[in-house]
Amino acid sequence: MEKINQTPKPPYYAVIFTSIKSDHLENYAEEALRMENLVKSQPGYLGHESASSEIGITVSYWKDLESIKAWKNHKDHSLAQTRGKSTWYSHYKVRICKVEKEYGI
Amino acid sequence: MEKINQTPKPPYYAVIFTSIKSDHLENYAEEALRMENLVKSQPGYLGHESASSEIGITVSYWKDLESIKAWKNHKDHSLAQTRGKSTWYSHYKVRICKVEKEYGI
Repeated sequence: MEKINQTPKPPYYAVIFTSIKSDHLENYAEEALRMENLVKSQPGYLGHESASSEIGITVSYWKDLESIKAWKNHKDHSLAQTRGKSTWYSHYKVRICKVEKEYGI
Repeated sequence: MEKINQTPKPPYYAVIFTSIKSDHLENYAEEALRMENLVKSQPGYLGHESASSEIGITVSYWKDLESIKAWKNHKDHSLAQTRGKSTWYSHYKVRICKVEKEYGI
């Protein structure tokens, strides 16, 4: 069950990944699940939230820019990114953000 | 059709709204559509992206913090927020972020 993360008091960082899939989704589901499990053990990882309808949005939360960079450069994740760019996604955007404020119920 | 926005060169701002709906959704769909149309005419609005499955994620993009604040305080939007908090959502979080970097295809 997806949930909304309890993140620490800001500032911390968010990576907003928005994507539109191509028609070539060989191995996509397995690899997405593998990355979802792998990301959870990365230093500085604070949680992530995903939703998908016409487009997909995944937001991951991080302690600092260094941990975002380390995850971007992780060997297995790099391979997945290459495959995503060449095959699985027709469009995507990655936005790296500093979370300055949060509130909610 | 949902699309991924062409946003300007950073820095600009993002508001990440993650939510879980309650079972009380009277007038929700009409009001959500009304807000979606209204937000597009707000000063400093740069676009938004939405996806919804187990949770809902809407990310809106803004020129600066002042335009985010003006939209938060817009009379009709304030009423919708009150209704959202009391009725439509069981949980939500709003995260206000400075977008520092973006890339994609």
